[in-house]
Amino acid sequence: MTTKHEFFVDMTCEGCSGAVTRVLNKLGGVQFEIDLPNKKVFIESDKDTDVLLETLKKTGKAANYIGPNDLKDDHEEKRLTTVLLSCLHGPLE
Amino acid sequence: MTTKHEFFVDMTCEGCSGAVTRVLNKLGGVQFEIDLPNKKVFIESDKDTDVLLETLKKTGKAANYIGPNDLKDDHEEKRLTTVLLSCLHGPLE
Repeated sequence: MTTKHEFFVDMTCEGCSGAVTRVLNKLGGVQFEIDLPNKKVFIESDKDTDVLLETLKKTGKAANYIGPNDLKDDHEEKRLTTVLLSCLHGPLE
Repeated sequence: MTTKHEFFVDMTCEGCSGAVTRVLNKLGGVQFEIDLPNKKVFIESDKDTDVLLETLKKTGKAANYIGPNDLKDDHEEKRLTTVLLSCLHGPLE
């Protein structure tokens, strides 16, 4: 199971998300996605979350660790959607 | 004579200039002004310009050292203004 870590980073423009992209690429050993409108950064890495948070804080932006954001959540959500759809449409015959 | 150092920092919003403010305050031993529309940061410090530039680059933003920006330039500008005004109004009697 891969664990994604969810961080809040106070980004307000493309320049801000670009800066976060550059510090994370410089750190290396990370895969990440940035959700600028919601000020979230999702990072997959073997590195300690403290290291990831310190790296994000280097940008001078306010940053917090929110918590793990497991990839299995996506599967769980899809499963629930399937269950809901089967409730709406009735069981398959 | 106090020397100000002029840097280019690729800032695009208040969030960007706020980030630069925080990294410089964290470094300490600096006095600075930020010109957001012109993407300039003017720093007075005894620290080496390489240290100042590395600090600015920590933000993940593109940054360059432009050069010294002497405070005496301000005085020179004021002196020229005085000269020009005395040309317009004639010498004092």
